Amino acid sequence: MIELYELGGLEDRRYSSFSWRTRLALAHKGLAFSARPVLMTDKAAIAFSGGTTVPVIRDGETVVRDSWQIAEYLERVYPDRRSLFGAPTGHALCRFFNAWTDRVVMPAAFLALACDAIQVQDPADRAHFTASVEKVAGVAPEALRPKQAEHFARLGKALEPARATLKRQAFVGGDAPCYADYGLASVFQWARIVSPVAVLPDGDPLGAWFERVLDLHDGAARRTVAFR
Amino acid sequence: MIELYELGGLEDRRYSSFSWRTRLALAHKGLAFSARPVLMTDKAAIAFSGGTTVPVIRDGETVVRDSWQIAEYLERVYPDRRSLFGAPTGHALCRFFNAWTDRVVMPAAFLALACDAIQVQDPADRAHFTASVEKVAGVAPEALRPKQAEHFARLGKALEPARATLKRQAFVGGDAPCYADYGLASVFQWARIVSPVAVLPDGDPLGAWFERVLDLHDGAARRTVAFR
Repeated sequence: MIELYELGGLEDRRYSSFSWRTRLALAHKGLAFSARPVLMTDKAAIAFSGGTTVPVIRDGETVVRDSWQIAEYLERVYPDRRSLFGAPTGHALCRFFNAWTDRVVMPAAFLALACDAIQVQDPADRAHFTASVEKVAGVAPEALRPKQAEHFARLGKALEPARATLKRQAFVGGDAPCYADYGLASVFQWARIVSPVAVLPDGDPLGAWFERVLDLHDGAARRTVAFR
Repeated sequence: MIELYELGGLEDRRYSSFSWRTRLALAHKGLAFSARPVLMTDKAAIAFSGGTTVPVIRDGETVVRDSWQIAEYLERVYPDRRSLFGAPTGHALCRFFNAWTDRVVMPAAFLALACDAIQVQDPADRAHFTASVEKVAGVAPEALRPKQAEHFARLGKALEPARATLKRQAFVGGDAPCYADYGLASVFQWARIVSPVAVLPDGDPLGAWFERVLDLHDGAARRTVAFR
């Protein structure tokens, strides 16, 4: 069975958005896996991977790290399972979508929710998490709280191209989900695991889409410790 | 032969970015066409289409307007020609890419270049163009000139997900172009037709990619009245 190494927080919260991309990619392929939580600061636990970040998977003798690399690995090694990318053009466009998620959506969500996310970190990881927030925001997580509404508004605006798209089709991948759905959904999944606050207003087409993603693969993403 | 109705400006500049999406989609499919310039304010010329905007194509008895609708029409009616979308997942992801281009890239480019674009409008269209700039920017085109450098910087930042992608692959569509390439390229094509100013700094991967697009289909996009 494939082993997945991922971040774990308080109350066994599996909060890493990148790990959720891998979890949903594995579920999409119908591949069973066991997940092992590690602390952000426990680099020894994943030293075998040759890197310092999760997710990492071990599939038999093969070790792969980085959620995008893992998705490409799964697509290459399990070509008979349902495709994550849907042919070369889809694969190339998923790379763009992934870059958009990482460079536009994630930073906006991080600014909006870091003040909550600090609360679910394991005490051993809090100083590291706080330092990473200070690096990008210039202030400690709690100092971002007064600006949460403003940051939600910016996030909502940043999501506009996805919102426009998901008014017209069920998934980013069309009638069926593709890896791009899992990338974007991983941000909302992180949000519901780290914060009790609703990211999207009622009636937002992105909310209905995210519910559809939570329903996929027998509710693979719904069944986890979360606030909402 | 397919007829294309598109905007025309001074010195026969075919400046409409949306029209270039259609031109490149037609070239991609290997379909011959003749292009007829119309003024932005000459709604009578395209009344036959049932709408008030170009591009419009007439293919035999069929009239189609709106560049995205035209692309879908061409893909549906000419399935034996090279695909614009590359299967359903690619089609769905192109819709997102198109939304990103329209809602993020185009507005940023418009603010940066409206002060130049006014210069190439036919005198009959200038009041209309000025009014459309005032509607989105709150000021007349020439008043945007002092902020051009700042708007270029914003455009450059908005393009970051595409830049990251095109460092790793030749086209947005991967090894070969797809409709997403034509959508993004249409903005740079508009820029080189309406302005002598370089949008991208030397060495930007997006510049090398745009040159590749200009080379496609026997230089279909390169051969037009432009500043650069």
